[in-house]
Amino acid sequence: MKILVINAGSSSLKYQLIDMENENVLAKGLCDRIGLDGKFVHNANGEKLEMDHPMPNHAEAIKVVLAHLTDAKWGVIKDVAEISAVGHRVVNGGEVFVEATLMDAEKIDTLESLTEFAPLHNPAAVTGLRACLEVMGADVPQVTVYDTAFHYGMPKTAAIYPIPYEYYEKYGIRRFGAHGTSHGYVAGECAKLLGKDIKDLKIVTCHLGNGSSITAVDGGRCVDTSMGFTPLAGVLMGTRCGDIDPAVAMFIMNKENLTPDEMNNIMNKKSGALGLSGVSNDFRDLDAAASEGNERAQLALDMFTYQVTKYIGSYAAAMGGVDAIVFTAGIGENNNVMRSDIVKNLKFLGVEMNEEENSKRGEARVVSTPESKVKVCVIPTNEELAIARQTLAVINK
Amino acid sequence: MKILVINAGSSSLKYQLIDMENENVLAKGLCDRIGLDGKFVHNANGEKLEMDHPMPNHAEAIKVVLAHLTDAKWGVIKDVAEISAVGHRVVNGGEVFVEATLMDAEKIDTLESLTEFAPLHNPAAVTGLRACLEVMGADVPQVTVYDTAFHYGMPKTAAIYPIPYEYYEKYGIRRFGAHGTSHGYVAGECAKLLGKDIKDLKIVTCHLGNGSSITAVDGGRCVDTSMGFTPLAGVLMGTRCGDIDPAVAMFIMNKENLTPDEMNNIMNKKSGALGLSGVSNDFRDLDAAASEGNERAQLALDMFTYQVTKYIGSYAAAMGGVDAIVFTAGIGENNNVMRSDIVKNLKFLGVEMNEEENSKRGEARVVSTPESKVKVCVIPTNEELAIARQTLAVINK
Repeated sequence: MKILVINAGSSSLKYQLIDMENENVLAKGLCDRIGLDGKFVHNANGEKLEMDHPMPNHAEAIKVVLAHLTDAKWGVIKDVAEISAVGHRVVNGGEVFVEATLMDAEKIDTLESLTEFAPLHNPAAVTGLRACLEVMGADVPQVTVYDTAFHYGMPKTAAIYPIPYEYYEKYGIRRFGAHGTSHGYVAGECAKLLGKDIKDLKIVTCHLGNGSSITAVDGGRCVDTSMGFTPLAGVLMGTRCGDIDPAVAMFIMNKENLTPDEMNNIMNKKSGALGLSGVSNDFRDLDAAASEGNERAQLALDMFTYQVTKYIGSYAAAMGGVDAIVFTAGIGENNNVMRSDIVKNLKFLGVEMNEEENSKRGEARVVSTPESKVKVCVIPTNEELAIARQTLAVINK
Repeated sequence: MKILVINAGSSSLKYQLIDMENENVLAKGLCDRIGLDGKFVHNANGEKLEMDHPMPNHAEAIKVVLAHLTDAKWGVIKDVAEISAVGHRVVNGGEVFVEATLMDAEKIDTLESLTEFAPLHNPAAVTGLRACLEVMGADVPQVTVYDTAFHYGMPKTAAIYPIPYEYYEKYGIRRFGAHGTSHGYVAGECAKLLGKDIKDLKIVTCHLGNGSSITAVDGGRCVDTSMGFTPLAGVLMGTRCGDIDPAVAMFIMNKENLTPDEMNNIMNKKSGALGLSGVSNDFRDLDAAASEGNERAQLALDMFTYQVTKYIGSYAAAMGGVDAIVFTAGIGENNNVMRSDIVKNLKFLGVEMNEEENSKRGEARVVSTPESKVKVCVIPTNEELAIARQTLAVINK
């Protein structure tokens, strides 16, 4: 059984075709600059195709993808009918779509009504869904998998904001979190790696990348997460400020005469490591600048480390303990110095790093010592596989 | 040597006269409704005086205080000259006044220029200072003691916000914290109580009252604190929301067409336990409502407990461990159930409560078991005494 995974952006569409018998990726690629000049990248059969290819809209992009998946040279299947289902990544399902869902035209309309919870991402997912329905027909199951679903069941003490309750009732303002598919996936892989039942584990998962979020996973369920109503909250990120005294925003708006949208833009696009350092939003650039003596670049790195450490401590307290800490995503998987610095202050919890293992690159592995009371794991995330698995579960229901 | 401690509000003035030989309070009281109808309360010699007494301004209020301190029946000193110095509580000294300071007219002008860091409180302190100078003359030392001073030395990783750095340079936006005089005092008393040198202790101090803040005190120095640029940040409070996704504020402002000042007012005055519960900002009312089955009152209590627990965990991680947790202020000193609930999830750190000690009321004491790896202490705060001690230190310099 083969499942096509789609991650649609406003002018892009990433895809993977996964064989669920062995979870192998048969082909993957990207339609970029949809509605503009159009770029197409396709990887299959050990080769890579890159070409300019105008795609006026997402439906045309899907057609290009399907044509290549069934192409004589570039294809990996004979017929589109071999695709059993399509799994679509959706950023925010609000309180309506709280688990992976088989979609129809009506449900897509409902999803469209949730646009304000993810103004940039949800409309793209809707476009991708409609394009697939149009091109593939109603007989191929279109399943949506939500970044917010893994977090949805967290207790109200973590989910609700201590602001006038009417804002939750009127506007649905609550903590949704993000990267849920990733957090859920790596928590599950962590249990496998440790040879334990996830029901018996308290795990803090650190998805650290361009956007970063940290989640407390108790017995396999999310009990708290650092991102909030929007992906602005939590630790500082490349360009996002994370948690700050909200009165700071009011003070700046008054001083600079800014609208809420302008202030949101500053907090989302001009803050974080970029705003602090004035150098870059890319942690590799910050490493380089810091090693040349740039103090503000060093401050950004130190502050990021410090904030992640504090979140791990706070989630250990939230769960009444911690058995494992998982690092994933760009920074989490690749920056061993950062991992080491983050857990340095956690010796009191019984964390002991195996620096030799930690300095290696590679597959999912434990990077703490055998004696370490709290296990530290590096687990490459695989949101596409997680989406495919959830899609399979929905169509097998 | 006797020191007069003054805590001036916009229309009030609290005072204590303290004998520094034995740190006894000789007299204390309150001038209230200054500039309005005027109420005067004075406690001395085991008796209490309450009366209506018009005081058109703070200078007149000071005169009333001094007249009663030297009164035949109500007095405790023969002459105003017995007052060696006056210690004034100031909420925010910005980055200018970073320790207790002997004031003169010029420094008072400088303090006045910091009004925007504490728009309600700093102008009252300036008024109180000028009133004392006017009434008592320039020969009596007037010392200011800052709520922000204890926090000032925290590392930049905790103090600076990850927003565009220019806002720190242009407007001085940084974490100042609050309740510093209280945190510093109870941390010091904790070390005495435990018979340890404070340099050897990692302490989390929880000042939980109408306003609540939590501080990490490592070796006697503040290394992090939950309040921020303003006292809005940190855990939820009676009417304040504490830390929330700042994008929530932007979303509400757009939806409800609010100005920054209006939004600030909602976050400071209509949020927190009051906003969540719709019942009250007073935790005793919430206890009562919750015991009658009010779910939102219970949620407010549970969320407060949960957030304080998380802060303790995060500050343990920040310091690389924790030796003692201190509870102080209205809720911290008086609500044993809340204390018990807060540390319930901290057994993994080695916290063991002695519920019998915890359920008693009284003086500074240890409420954890002798075996508890982390000591839990209840220590009544005494900001007036702390201000008097700091004032004495300044004039003895």
